[in-house]
Order: sequence, then C-alpha cells, then structure tokens
Amino acid sequence: MKKFIFDVFYSKTEKGFVYRIDDYLITSLIVLNILAVMLETFKGLLEEYYNLFLYFEIFSVFIFTVEYALRIWVSDLKYPELSKTKARLKYIFSFMGLVDLFAILPFYIPLFFTFDGRFLRILRLFRLIRILKLSSYTTALQLLASVIFEKKQELIVTVFTIFILLLFSSALMYELESDVQPDQFPNIFATFWWAVATLTTIGYGDVYPITAMGKFLAAITAIFGIGLVAIPTGLLSAGFLSKIRDEKELKICPHCGKSFDEH
Amino acid sequence: MKKFIFDVFYSKTEKGFVYRIDDYLITSLIVLNILAVMLETFKGLLEEYYNLFLYFEIFSVFIFTVEYALRIWVSDLKYPELSKTKARLKYIFSFMGLVDLFAILPFYIPLFFTFDGRFLRILRLFRLIRILKLSSYTTALQLLASVIFEKKQELIVTVFTIFILLLFSSALMYELESDVQPDQFPNIFATFWWAVATLTTIGYGDVYPITAMGKFLAAITAIFGIGLVAIPTGLLSAGFLSKIRDEKELKICPHCGKSFDEH
Amino acid sequence: MKKFIFDVFYSKTEKGFVYRIDDYLITSLIVLNILAVMLETFKGLLEEYYNLFLYFEIFSVFIFTVEYALRIWVSDLKYPELSKTKARLKYIFSFMGLVDLFAILPFYIPLFFTFDGRFLRILRLFRLIRILKLSSYTTALQLLASVIFEKKQELIVTVFTIFILLLFSSALMYELESDVQPDQFPNIFATFWWAVATLTTIGYGDVYPITAMGKFLAAITAIFGIGLVAIPTGLLSAGFLSKIRDEKELKICPHCGKSFDEH
Amino acid sequence: MKKFIFDVFYSKTEKGFVYRIDDYLITSLIVLNILAVMLETFKGLLEEYYNLFLYFEIFSVFIFTVEYALRIWVSDLKYPELSKTKARLKYIFSFMGLVDLFAILPFYIPLFFTFDGRFLRILRLFRLIRILKLSSYTTALQLLASVIFEKKQELIVTVFTIFILLLFSSALMYELESDVQPDQFPNIFATFWWAVATLTTIGYGDVYPITAMGKFLAAITAIFGIGLVAIPTGLLSAGFLSKIRDEKELKICPHCGKSFDEH
Repeated sequence: MKKFIFDVFYSKTEKGFVYRIDDYLITSLIVLNILAVMLETFKGLLEEYYNLFLYFEIFSVFIFTVEYALRIWVSDLKYPELSKTKARLKYIFSFMGLVDLFAILPFYIPLFFTFDGRFLRILRLFRLIRILKLSSYTTALQLLASVIFEKKQELIVTVFTIFILLLFSSALMYELESDVQPDQFPNIFATFWWAVATLTTIGYGDVYPITAMGKFLAAITAIFGIGLVAIPTGLLSAGFLSKIRDEKELKICPHCGKSFDEH
Repeated sequence: MKKFIFDVFYSKTEKGFVYRIDDYLITSLIVLNILAVMLETFKGLLEEYYNLFLYFEIFSVFIFTVEYALRIWVSDLKYPELSKTKARLKYIFSFMGLVDLFAILPFYIPLFFTFDGRFLRILRLFRLIRILKLSSYTTALQLLASVIFEKKQELIVTVFTIFILLLFSSALMYELESDVQPDQFPNIFATFWWAVATLTTIGYGDVYPITAMGKFLAAITAIFGIGLVAIPTGLLSAGFLSKIRDEKELKICPHCGKSFDEH
Repeated sequence: MKKFIFDVFYSKTEKGFVYRIDDYLITSLIVLNILAVMLETFKGLLEEYYNLFLYFEIFSVFIFTVEYALRIWVSDLKYPELSKTKARLKYIFSFMGLVDLFAILPFYIPLFFTFDGRFLRILRLFRLIRILKLSSYTTALQLLASVIFEKKQELIVTVFTIFILLLFSSALMYELESDVQPDQFPNIFATFWWAVATLTTIGYGDVYPITAMGKFLAAITAIFGIGLVAIPTGLLSAGFLSKIRDEKELKICPHCGKSFDEH
Repeated sequence: MKKFIFDVFYSKTEKGFVYRIDDYLITSLIVLNILAVMLETFKGLLEEYYNLFLYFEIFSVFIFTVEYALRIWVSDLKYPELSKTKARLKYIFSFMGLVDLFAILPFYIPLFFTFDGRFLRILRLFRLIRILKLSSYTTALQLLASVIFEKKQELIVTVFTIFILLLFSSALMYELESDVQPDQFPNIFATFWWAVATLTTIGYGDVYPITAMGKFLAAITAIFGIGLVAIPTGLLSAGFLSKIRDEKELKICPHCGKSFDEH
C-alpha cells in the first residue's frame, strides 16, 4: 500500500494509468486553483459565486492536505538511508515540502486567528504559491534561482553600478527639471522612477524631461546607460539558456538512472 | 504539353521567358491581391469601387484556380516515383497544396453557404494567406517554423517561467495598485497586460503604477525580468540567423543539383 | 604649387601646420554649416538674421567651390596612373567627388531655376550633406554601407519575414480592434504603425489595443515577434562591430604604407 | 599608532573588529549621507528638520575631515618607496584622495564665499559624490571607466555614425512633420529628441509622427537604426562583463598576496 502510494507520487517508470493519477488530478486541480484565484479578483464575481469558490477551495485544500499527509507518510521510502523521523523532517523542510505546506496554510490560518480584510486578501493571493506544486514550473524556477545564484557576484557589481548611474542621473535630472515640473520630479526618489523607465527603455511616458538641458541629459543617459542596464538582462539570459541546454542533455543521472526531474 | 506546364511551375534551370511567366504573373497577382485586401479595409473604398474589387477578385481566383488545377494535374511529374493518385494526394496535402487551396476557398465558400457579416469580413482578410504562395516568403516562413520547432523545448521552459513571473508580478501589482487605480488594475488578468508591456519594454503608457510601492515593484520586475523575456527573443534570433546561413551555403543539393527552393 | 595643394588635401604624413589647414578650416566650416542649417529651422531666427545666414552661406559655398575646383585640378596627382581627363572624371564620379558637388549644388540651383517654397526648403536641408565631407564621418558611413551590403541576403530574408509578421498581426489586430477604436485602427495600413511600434518595443502609446482579445494578440505578438525584429538589429550591430575591429587593425596598407583613410 | 591607523584604513588581512571599524562606521555614514541628500529634496522636509539635517551634516563632515587628515598623515606608509611629501601629494591627487576632498568641500566652500540659492542647491546635491568613498562602488566605477576607455575608438566611430543617423532622420522628420505638428517638431534640434527616444526604443510618447509619410520614415528608421544604437549598448555590456570576470579570477595579486580591492 505505502509502496504503491510512493510509486504514484515519485515513480516515473511505472506505466499504468493509476500511476499518472497524481500528475493528472493534481495538475488539473492546481490549474483550476490558479484560475480561481485570478477570477476572484474580478469585481463582483467573488460575492456572486461565493459558495462555489468556497466549496472549491475546501475541496482543493482537502485533496492537497491528504496529498501532503501521504507525502510525509511515504517520505521514509523516498530517503531509505535515513531514519523514519529524519526522512519526514527532511521532506517537510525540503523546498517541495515547504511549498506543499504553504499551499494549504492560507486556508487554515484564518480558521484559528482573526485578521483584518487586507491581510485576508493577501492570504487569498498567497494561494498562487500552489503553482509551484507543478513540478515542471518548479524545475523552471529552480533553474532561474540557480542562474541568479551562480551569477551572484556579477549581478551585485552590476546592480551597484546601475544604482550609482540611477543616483547621479536622477540627481541631475531633479536639479534640471524639478523647477518646471514639480509634480513629475518632486524629489530624487521620485526621479528614480523616471531613470528606471528610461534606462530599461520602457518609457511609459508618464514622466519625461521637457527642458532642453533635461532632454540632453536624458539622451546621453539613455545612449550610454542602456548598455549598463542590459547587463543583468544579458547575464540572466545567457545563464538561463546554458542551464536549459545542460538540463536537456543531462536528464538521467548516470549513476542511478533516475530522472533529475524527480523530487 | 504536361511536361511544359510542369517546367513552367517547377523548373528553375530552363532559361526562356515563358518559363518565368509563373513567377512574374503569379507574383504580380499575389502582390496586387494583398494590396486589394488592405485597401478594402479603408472606410468607403470598398463601397465606392465595389465592382472593381469584385472583378479583380473573380479574375484572381480564376487564375489561382486554373493554377491549382494544373498543379494537381502535373503533380505526377513532380513525384514520378508515386502512382498518379498518390502523387496528386501528396501534392494536395503538402504545405504548398494546402496554401493553394486555402488561397481560393474564401471566394468559393460564400457561394455555397450563407454567413453573417462578421464571418464574411474575416473570410475577406483570410485571403491574405495568398501571400504564402510567394515561394520566397514561404521559404522565410518555413525557416521561422523550423526554428520554433527546433528550439521547442527551450521555448516551453522559458514560456513557463515567463508565465510564473507574469503571474506573481501581476498578483503583487494588483494587490498594490488596484485600490488607487481600480480602472487600470481591475483584476489579475488585466494586470497581465501591464506586466507584458513592462517586461517586453514596450511601455505603451496606458497602465503604469502610481504608488511608491508599485513603482518599486515595477522597477525590480523590469531590471530582472527583462532578462527572462529576452530569452525567446535571443533564441529565435540566434536560430533564425544560423538557419539563414545554412540556407545560403546549401542552396543546391549536392546530389541532384536542384535548388532547395523548389517545391 | 600643384604638388603643395595635393599634399594639403591628401597627405597625412607631412607634419607642418599648413598641411593641416584643410582639416582645421574645412572641418570648422562644415560644423558651422551643419549648425547653421539646424538653427535656420528655428522659427523667426532665419527671418531675423537673414543677411547673416546668407553671407555665411555665400562664404561657405565660395570656400567649398574653390576646394572642389582645386581637388579636380590636382586629381591627376591622386591617380597618377590615369590620363589627366580620366583622373578628373574618376574624382568627379567618386563618392567623395559627388559629395563635394552635392554640397555646393543647393546654392547654385536656385540661381538658375525658380522653385516653389517647399522645394527651396528641402534644398536648404539638403545642405546637411556637407557633413559627409568630414572624412571621419565618411569612413563611418562607408563602414555602415559595407555592412548593409555584406549582410544583404540575410537582411532581405528577414525583412520579408518581418513584413509577413507585420501583415498578419496587423490584419488580426484590425479585425479585433477596428470596431471599438475606429480612429486608431481605421485600416490595415494604419495598423502597421501599431505593429511596428510594438515589435520594435518603442511603444509610443498613441495606439494600443483596448479589448481583451486585442491585448492577448498584442502580448503574443510581442513576446515572439520581438525576436524577429531583433535580427536586423543584431545583424547590423555584429557586422558593424567586426568592421570597426578590422578597421582598427588594418589602418595602413601593407604595400604602399598609406593610410586607408585617404581619399 | 600611525601603523595602527594605516591598518584600520588599508589592511584587509587583520581580523580584529577594530580593523573593520573603518568599513562599518564610514560605510554606514556614507549610506546615511546619501539618504539625507535624497530626503532633503522632499518638499518641506528640509525646512521642518533643518537643524537635524544641519547637525548630521556637521557631524559627517567632521568625521570625513578627520578621516581625510588621517589618510594624508599615513600616506607615507601606503607608498613607502616615496618621500613623505611625495607620498602625501600622491595620495591627495589620487582618484580616492580627490573623492575624499570633494566629499567635504561642499560643506566648507559656503563658509568662505557667498553664493546664490541655485549654486548652494547644486552644492548640496554635490554631496552625493560621497557615495564614491564606498570602495566597492569605486571598483565598479573604475571598471566602467576602464571599459569606456578601452572601447574608446569603437565608441567614437559609433557615436559619430549615430549622430549622422540622428541628423538625417531628424531633418527628414522635421521636413515631414513640422507643418502639421509645429509644437512637437519646431526645429531640427527639438526633433533630435524624437529621434533619440525612437532609436533607443524608449518611446515616451510625447512626440511621434502623425502623417503617413512621417510614420513610414519612423518605421524604417526604427527597424534599421536600432541596430546602430544597440552598438554602444553591446560594447559596454560585453566589455563590462569581461572585466567582471577578470576581476573575479584575479582578486589576489599572485606576487604580494594583497587584494586588488585595496587603495
């Protein structure tokens, strides 16, 4: 029985339909949950279909709680080299274990404590963390995290340099434009917003210089500064891409033959 | 006779003017058709010159239909190793055969069925598919399709990751801004529009955060997220470019001496 | 005498100040001319200082005409292997010879013919071509031209593909948005403007979809289409950069020891 | 005593807390100073907390002045091979020495001279230079400066070419749009602003063409011109990135074992 549940959760080699039930049922439920969280933000929809959303939430949390309990139960099969307690703790404090826990917490917390409306609303949104239960999403996210971690040092130096550039161009722009556009450039902090929108080339168009000197500063800042802001972009793209390639090539561990996707 | 028509359509080695008639006539007709479809969308132009557009469409479809029939007829010369029926079916269900069919269908369908105005208008626009009859365009499009197909796996992982990023930044931005800008950020779906415009650096300027926290979130999202959204850009650019180079180098098959452009 | 003038124009090895007079005088005059053309477009400035602008123009054209005549005169020393007439014709029809001619033509043409105001205004702007007399600018421009020429084939294929993408996304967007925003998306041609602003990520914000379907189409188009539009960008950048490097390394001809900048 | 102060400032190998006092105290003080300069620009805040800002400034300048004096005093230990006077002059005119001087000057200058309000305000902003006292920021800035210096020649050629492109596209756009939008395109200088916003893809949306010909010119300029403007971006990114990698690999001098971060 326990072995069967373990296989349902973790085995990718068993071919029977019943072993895919985890993938199909849980994945569909997660997608529906994400949709529900997004639909709830539509004005009026939550009030009108309150019961529907509530029952679906209760049903989802019931399934996710059972899944969480079962995963704790079978964790000693996942880490056979550890003692029962250690295996369970290891699972509970693993990334996926925490995700599984945080996925159900937003439901249980308000049952035991009372909160104001704002916090409850944030708790509702917090249910979006359920998307991380999708293993393929998780892989993508772990990829991203590992890229950021690997390029840590370059990112820090670049972010420092970008900060100096933002600081000086904002200070200059504040000096040049705050008199003629006090609403748009009220202080240096607010001018940072202009600098970010310019250097990332987003250019929303809510703030822009109108004096000749301000436009000149913006042009110079843009032509040279974009190169600097392009560095995190380039770093993350390059790192992410090279990881995807590694991933594609090394999906099966050469020693145990297990897929790297397993968790 | 049949051999002559086949050569007109498919041979690139015959040098006579008559063998180029396909290229010149059909290409001009296609360009004029695309222009006609675009001009028809000008308000009032279709009503004023209704007959002109109609006669031109009838003339075009007549030529394209004759071309389609002839191409079916000579398809056994194109695939000499197949039986007559199989050769014809092979042509009809080839990419170019389907394009040739769909290029004339928008004319014939309304003759046999009646539709509402909207569907008829879409059918008119559907005639733009005639541009795919241009072999050079087709080559470009096949190039693009093959690049997308080749980088499929990287694209899927990236699009997943972009989706997570869009989801979380939209949810946070919705939480931060929906109270002060309920028209711009009415729900998470609508906030996706802001997230896409920001992360692609398009920045139309129709939606942007106005609170300090919202601007801070937008700045962080932009500086780090742009790198992620740049990946499909980079993937497609790099793949497309390397394909063009291959194309340029290998235009003639080393075995039969035929150009790869033929179809 | 002739030899001395030739050296003033073309020799980079003579060190005396008089040999640099060409560089200093002509370069200053060109920069002042460009400034004058730009200043003339300021409303009222041309009327107020009409005589100043006129005398400066007469003075400039006088100098440039003398320079042009002298360059024709000494052209037989520049191409010693050709006959006198051939050498002069070669200079006159060389790129720099044509630039030198077109630099003074906007002054002489209105003396012999009468034109309407618009054409005269364009002729005034046409004087901007004098900037091409700056040899360093010319080098940069020749670099650019050679890059475009070298990547011709890739550029054509890419521009074709971009055109298809623009066509289909514009047609779809027209279909989706023309009913709700007839002013912004009146026809497919006008919708091209939206498509270009989106795919280049400029996003002025004068046109953007407002329906949910239109926004969805814009998002998909942006995420995948930007990669395509990035190709000419990448091609030109890469080509230009590699040329600059070649340029830097090979500035002196290995055979005659002359600088490649000479003309 | 002198040796101890020198070690506090320059030694990275001594492990005691007292040797880190320089890092902790000065770094905190610098961060607080930057914050103060930014906060002062908030309307009303400077007036309300004038004394607080003043006392903090006096305290900061006192510390920075003492630090500057001590650094001059111990500079003979930093350059033991030089005479006392030469070592002191070397430190004073080194980059860090000048930064240390300019960091306190904005306080002392108004004590001895009287200025108008505008100049005083600029002096206040000038205190932002104190951020350069942070050694890690300085490293980043020196990195950036060395990248710009290294790619000098490429940058000059590119900036020249960008200038020609800006000039011609601005002149054409001025000709096409100044009649219908005299406020947005009043002269060629002002049209430069449009050209920069377009070619960098910022696209604030304050100026854009509205005529068909103007839009066509903008589209062509964008698709081909972006490639050119992307070159400084690419140059700076690539150069900066390769420098960071060098930095990371060679942080300790192989001969003396000292960190390269020292100054």
